[in-house]
Amino acid sequence: MSHVTVLGLGSMGSALAGSFLSAGHQVTVWNRTAARAEPLVARGAAAAATAGEAVAAAPLVVACVLDYDALRTLLAGHEAALAGRTLVNLTSGSPEQARETAAWAAGHGIAYLDGAIMNTPPHIGAPGTMLLYSGDPAALARHHDTLAALGDPVDLGEDAGRAGLYDTALLGLMWATLGGWLHGVALAAADGVPATEFTPVANRWLSGAVAGFLSAYAPQTDARSYPGDDATLDVHLAAMQHLLHASRDRGVDTALPELFARQTERAIAAGHGADSYARLIEVIAK
Amino acid sequence: MSHVTVLGLGSMGSALAGSFLSAGHQVTVWNRTAARAEPLVARGAAAAATAGEAVAAAPLVVACVLDYDALRTLLAGHEAALAGRTLVNLTSGSPEQARETAAWAAGHGIAYLDGAIMNTPPHIGAPGTMLLYSGDPAALARHHDTLAALGDPVDLGEDAGRAGLYDTALLGLMWATLGGWLHGVALAAADGVPATEFTPVANRWLSGAVAGFLSAYAPQTDARSYPGDDATLDVHLAAMQHLLHASRDRGVDTALPELFARQTERAIAAGHGADSYARLIEVIAK
Repeated sequence: MSHVTVLGLGSMGSALAGSFLSAGHQVTVWNRTAARAEPLVARGAAAAATAGEAVAAAPLVVACVLDYDALRTLLAGHEAALAGRTLVNLTSGSPEQARETAAWAAGHGIAYLDGAIMNTPPHIGAPGTMLLYSGDPAALARHHDTLAALGDPVDLGEDAGRAGLYDTALLGLMWATLGGWLHGVALAAADGVPATEFTPVANRWLSGAVAGFLSAYAPQTDARSYPGDDATLDVHLAAMQHLLHASRDRGVDTALPELFARQTERAIAAGHGADSYARLIEVIAK
Repeated sequence: MSHVTVLGLGSMGSALAGSFLSAGHQVTVWNRTAARAEPLVARGAAAAATAGEAVAAAPLVVACVLDYDALRTLLAGHEAALAGRTLVNLTSGSPEQARETAAWAAGHGIAYLDGAIMNTPPHIGAPGTMLLYSGDPAALARHHDTLAALGDPVDLGEDAGRAGLYDTALLGLMWATLGGWLHGVALAAADGVPATEFTPVANRWLSGAVAGFLSAYAPQTDARSYPGDDATLDVHLAAMQHLLHASRDRGVDTALPELFARQTERAIAAGHGADSYARLIEVIAK
């Protein structure tokens, strides 16, 4: 069992500290508003009086605060205390902020990992919860088993910006998927189908055929070659007209399917109607 | 083993007939252009000389043609031959067309199932391929094991329009998900991450946390009550700004995240900032 410090006890930081405690680790916590530490102290955590004391308590320091500005303020003056320790920063931010923080850490002899937590506080520690890490690979290897108390650690390599980049990209994928699902729910509801009936089929579809399409199209986008051997953009556009029609008939907002139809039309107009859907990467990436 | 007739031998119809043959069924085929039957005859299928002969050959008749107009033309005059048999229509169309065809079939004593094939021809017969059926429940029960040769039969109940409705709704979900994935691939590519590296993480995210969100939000949309106990629209909107910023920095088209941000802003302006993402159903469904 290891000793770990958790800085920041918002709902996410508290969930992180709680999962370390549940896994049997020794946990030191600190929060700007000290009262937030009380439920964790009741479960066996030690509350540090100052951030400096918290940082000095353990070889592994996990920070989860509001933003990178708050992180910088919090750690200012504690660089020497952090030297030789590992700082795992689970604060949300941009890839650029992560890279700057990694450079700052390297300048002070601090092993740095930037991380992204791909679930909500109640799911911390649950099987299937993914945490993405990028930065110092030796630090991740050293603390992998301790960090596994929070969820499955996914190693994205040395560029500290990768966890934040994936975080943003995956959230975008989530909003898109939620948007498509809400659209389907609205269509189904118009014909008397409850969302609880539609959704298990939607989830099977996503984890089956749709996952297969993404896996098939990934090498196509890498190779910038889009053979339409499963379904062509021409075929997709025809099917999109059915969706637009069904949506209008049911009073469901068409902005989302119109956006995809417009992108598809643009690719077809450029002469790519016989290509796969992956061709649309050329429409959206400049 | 059963005897099944397949009408229409485009790439999908040929794949259907091929999977019935692989499963050991006796197969009769018919196509407007007779030459398309040859590869299947070489594998043991019988080619009917006319559509009428094909319809009369088997108790189960599976049709997969261009559209409902083609289906109507094909079956005109064969109503009496179809009486007492089961017609499984896997032709793509609208829920309304399926319901009309079900009414026509009922008027002629034909057991009718409308179906949607949720994958591409090469995946017919593969485990995990879903086929959606709606219409006569007794007919589905009777032919379930034969139809299972094509993929897993999912029973959507008596309303013949349901398979087409789900088909359209699930395709919409697919395009949305593909759009979000392409956006993520474009962001990742800008930072030197290949799609083949990003995509396995994206698929884990979809089948894990994102599937969990859909399952959690389905009862919320049914109940029209959207407690923001995991993440509120205010929190989502703040994270969307990061995505918009990261996209602009990398020259990735922002139309998709702007659409979601606009919907979220609309719900927040209506006073729902503390609600869950599922609240957006009220923005898109009238």
